[in-house]
Amino acid sequence: MINKLIDKIKKTNAPIVVGLDPMLSYIPPQIVKHAFEEYGETLEGAAEAIWQFNKGIVDATYDLIPAVKPQIAMYEQFGIPGLIAYKKTIDYCKEKDLIVIGDIKRGDIGSTSAAYAAGHLGHVQVGSRSYAGFDEDFATVNPYLGTDGVKPFADVCREEKKGLFILVKTSNPSSGEFQDRIIDGRPLYEWVGEKVAQWGEELMGDTYSYIGAVVGATYPEMGKVLRKLMPKTFILVPGYGAQGGKGADLVHFFNEDGLGAIVNSSRGIIAAYKQEKYAFVGADNYAEASRMAVKDMIADIAGALSGR
Amino acid sequence: MINKLIDKIKKTNAPIVVGLDPMLSYIPPQIVKHAFEEYGETLEGAAEAIWQFNKGIVDATYDLIPAVKPQIAMYEQFGIPGLIAYKKTIDYCKEKDLIVIGDIKRGDIGSTSAAYAAGHLGHVQVGSRSYAGFDEDFATVNPYLGTDGVKPFADVCREEKKGLFILVKTSNPSSGEFQDRIIDGRPLYEWVGEKVAQWGEELMGDTYSYIGAVVGATYPEMGKVLRKLMPKTFILVPGYGAQGGKGADLVHFFNEDGLGAIVNSSRGIIAAYKQEKYAFVGADNYAEASRMAVKDMIADIAGALSGR
Repeated sequence: MINKLIDKIKKTNAPIVVGLDPMLSYIPPQIVKHAFEEYGETLEGAAEAIWQFNKGIVDATYDLIPAVKPQIAMYEQFGIPGLIAYKKTIDYCKEKDLIVIGDIKRGDIGSTSAAYAAGHLGHVQVGSRSYAGFDEDFATVNPYLGTDGVKPFADVCREEKKGLFILVKTSNPSSGEFQDRIIDGRPLYEWVGEKVAQWGEELMGDTYSYIGAVVGATYPEMGKVLRKLMPKTFILVPGYGAQGGKGADLVHFFNEDGLGAIVNSSRGIIAAYKQEKYAFVGADNYAEASRMAVKDMIADIAGALSGR
Repeated sequence: MINKLIDKIKKTNAPIVVGLDPMLSYIPPQIVKHAFEEYGETLEGAAEAIWQFNKGIVDATYDLIPAVKPQIAMYEQFGIPGLIAYKKTIDYCKEKDLIVIGDIKRGDIGSTSAAYAAGHLGHVQVGSRSYAGFDEDFATVNPYLGTDGVKPFADVCREEKKGLFILVKTSNPSSGEFQDRIIDGRPLYEWVGEKVAQWGEELMGDTYSYIGAVVGATYPEMGKVLRKLMPKTFILVPGYGAQGGKGADLVHFFNEDGLGAIVNSSRGIIAAYKQEKYAFVGADNYAEASRMAVKDMIADIAGALSGR
């Protein structure tokens, strides 16, 4: 799957991923209204609004981008109906040949991680048959439990040709509280990054590993160090746009080959019509605003990369 | 909710929690057979088998125990039908007045943690109405992202009178890889423990905080240190039984008041009928074996506590 991701990045010339993290407040009133008319002000109604909203954005952007990253929490908050919308979104994006990065940040002891891995990336056995529960292409994983919490995910990736992005340095303001603490002269995130590179060595694609890392755009200097420490590791970079990361900050996350990173933007794209810059299209045309924001983001990153 | 948990522990004299972590291989053949007859060898069939299995165990043990801890991964692996069984299990346990600890190990940046917190412990707004998606009483949380990943959970707990157990030192073999690394002379898990105690100070119940910690039974010496470091923090202790923790190891997790810890056993109780000791009851009476295993576990811990 990492080979396919890289192919698609080359074809689209867009090392970006659209974060499908819908909040009800992002969804244009007409979509919410239709959904509530059909299902009432219920969890089902919210899930329908989210699904219709996502579908509009995917339809308007899928030819420009290699991948999407639905954040499962935004669906899980609406209980079972929300998770049905999550699954519907995954299936629809795959129909459109988009790569789906499930932002699930799971991670547990071995047998439990194995269950998460089966449910999200692999198959689960039921009697004589086997099923894929959610069937994302990549999943994000939390490393706090160490190797035996990650290995079951890696095992499923080997079998299914899927991939991981493991949290190394997250984009949030307090990520440094533990991740930046110094251990034997180096911050924890470097030790985690080194482990990610090691885990990845055993699961190489053509040029990059199936096991990637998450490093926030909000910490470009750390991204620079981690880029060198994990040369064969693809980096998923959240925090661009709404969280404060800028195009110029992103160059450090890429290798000399112009590859090695994929930058996520969520709110900046899916709620673009709410920004002054794109407001002229109106809420009815929210998906068109998303398309413009994708194009602007691609240009911003291309500009930064060509200028280095 | 921490006050209610403590009340129930005192009433039952059982500082234990039954881990409802069903694997299809644990479920007696007759239950699986009935479920497959009704739903086929499908995800729905697997979910039905899990639910019937859980119901049997809950019916046979609810009067002896204060709480259950369903591990969501074991349900999530069966996709949407599995999660419906998770929700059904939660609701049924609450009907039986059991406290439900959702072992979800979620944790993300602020706005995303807020969505998880709303979905699992709180309410989500849909138009003019609000809904509880999963509605557990406690949730486990991963601390790797620091304060701003935990705060949204704490905020919901304050509002809903619910609680958390934050991963400090996990029970798995490789937990030390990052958690034991030395920072300024002390292991990372102590720094996390100290933070958990601090976070908890702002959310105190009558004697213990609403914010608890997870510390594995497999590391009793570390439990001893953490017990002193976090005197007002209730400790959820996984790893008893199948993972290797013994009753005698557990005394270190309790305070002088005989409280402060709740010990989880999953396989050792729910699959008790597969152990030599209880096999005589037969697979048809699996729930009776679980009841015996609960009683033995209570006696083991009481013995260890009275002997100290």
